[in-house]
Amino acid sequence: MLKIYLKEKREIFEKYLQEKMTELKYPERLAESMIYSVMNGGKRLRPVLMYMIADIFNQDYSRIEDTAAALECIHSYSLVHDDLPAMDDDTYRRGKLTTHKKFDEATAILAGDALLTYAFYVISASEKIENSGKVNIIRILSDYSGINGMVGGQYVDMESENKEISFDTLKYIHSHKTGKLLKAAVELPLEALAIEGKQKEVLLEYSELIGIAFQIKDDLLDIEGDFEKTGKESSDEKNNKTTYPKLFGLEKTKEILNDYTEKAKQLIRENFENAEILVELADYISNRGE
Amino acid sequence: MLKIYLKEKREIFEKYLQEKMTELKYPERLAESMIYSVMNGGKRLRPVLMYMIADIFNQDYSRIEDTAAALECIHSYSLVHDDLPAMDDDTYRRGKLTTHKKFDEATAILAGDALLTYAFYVISASEKIENSGKVNIIRILSDYSGINGMVGGQYVDMESENKEISFDTLKYIHSHKTGKLLKAAVELPLEALAIEGKQKEVLLEYSELIGIAFQIKDDLLDIEGDFEKTGKESSDEKNNKTTYPKLFGLEKTKEILNDYTEKAKQLIRENFENAEILVELADYISNRGE
Repeated sequence: MLKIYLKEKREIFEKYLQEKMTELKYPERLAESMIYSVMNGGKRLRPVLMYMIADIFNQDYSRIEDTAAALECIHSYSLVHDDLPAMDDDTYRRGKLTTHKKFDEATAILAGDALLTYAFYVISASEKIENSGKVNIIRILSDYSGINGMVGGQYVDMESENKEISFDTLKYIHSHKTGKLLKAAVELPLEALAIEGKQKEVLLEYSELIGIAFQIKDDLLDIEGDFEKTGKESSDEKNNKTTYPKLFGLEKTKEILNDYTEKAKQLIRENFENAEILVELADYISNRGE
Repeated sequence: MLKIYLKEKREIFEKYLQEKMTELKYPERLAESMIYSVMNGGKRLRPVLMYMIADIFNQDYSRIEDTAAALECIHSYSLVHDDLPAMDDDTYRRGKLTTHKKFDEATAILAGDALLTYAFYVISASEKIENSGKVNIIRILSDYSGINGMVGGQYVDMESENKEISFDTLKYIHSHKTGKLLKAAVELPLEALAIEGKQKEVLLEYSELIGIAFQIKDDLLDIEGDFEKTGKESSDEKNNKTTYPKLFGLEKTKEILNDYTEKAKQLIRENFENAEILVELADYISNRGE
């Protein structure tokens, strides 16, 4: 059930995104590198999560698809910059050459910059969102993706290489580097659809739980997974990073992952009658790659 | 007269900007690198130009200072990324170490990303601009600073190194790489102050003329100026770039610069009675460094 849903929504989203990005034309090679970076074979977890929220509240996608495109542009730019030689120095991502390997380093830097900028253009120029909605979305998105969000998480992650770090620091990295954009994927459609109160609270808490689970699973995959499964080399070990398995060992890490997943599922089941898809998603996140 | 004005407004702006950026706290070293990149001893031409527009229409600065801060964050991030080893590979800017030399390359990449993101946060979170104004400002700013603006210009500039390029391509580079943000410095306050019609048209044309003049002068300074005057090494020659002097020779280039400057001045004098400051600014741009 979930697999079909994921595939279907991913296809709907990618069609929209691809169409949207045809408006990027010149400089040609820069546009090409931006499109290459975004059409990257990813699972589109964030946009699909946005569609799930819309489905739960029986809303069509027209009010959220520009925001989904923007969020994915930001996620994609962060991967492009993260892969650069001065950062993680990765050659492959999901089995494809990283942007700086496919093009060159300067192009990858500028493609990332242009994608980040384009994200805010897409929202501000959207014909489907009202002005107050646009402002709230841009405020949340820029907050969650900048120094107080994703970039802050990336920075501390990088700073922590070859160092012993505390569990608090590890939690900060996880909740910011990956967690904030996953939270955005839930919060932004709630914003667009003007959902408030208890339901919003529960869904935001759910997003935080699956964000942490996602990152713990990433740590596990990085150890257990091989190139074929993850499409990339083991960066954590290469960069000597503190991870859940390093702090707690493999067995205990799996237990912690399970706890987060169960808590996320329970929260949904207790508060929603029609959100089984979010329960399945929590399982999917903690089981992926298996 | 102009010199005092420039100094005074620069000080007003820097006080505002510095105060604003104290809200950036953690990760500490990332915040520090962002502030280092922005408090860079620049002339603050763009913010000051915004203040000039406000002065001409007798408006106080409260409605434009957040936008000025955002514009300067974008300008500053572009310098940080432009200076990176994979791009211009500069060690100094205005006599100070570039961000990647003062900190490190990865920090410079992330500081640039965070500054660009912060620009949109500052506008969207501003307490002084109404929602429709915010949306227009963000749309213009993201358009002028992304693939269709500054980043596009930087890309073609880079692509043109060690190559013969046409005069049209050179004009594209100039009007995008530098011109678009100078245009933004005029257009954004007009937007914030809701100025329309002939006056808007004239001021936008003026901004385009001084933008080109600015870039031609930059080409001249790069040849004539030495490290003491410009605070940086001659990058154009190092990177074998096509410039006005290379295409037209030194004397003809000075004539062209003069033509643009005179046209800009004339436009202001014919259409405004109280905008002598913009006439002086045009002269200042074409005479700086002398």
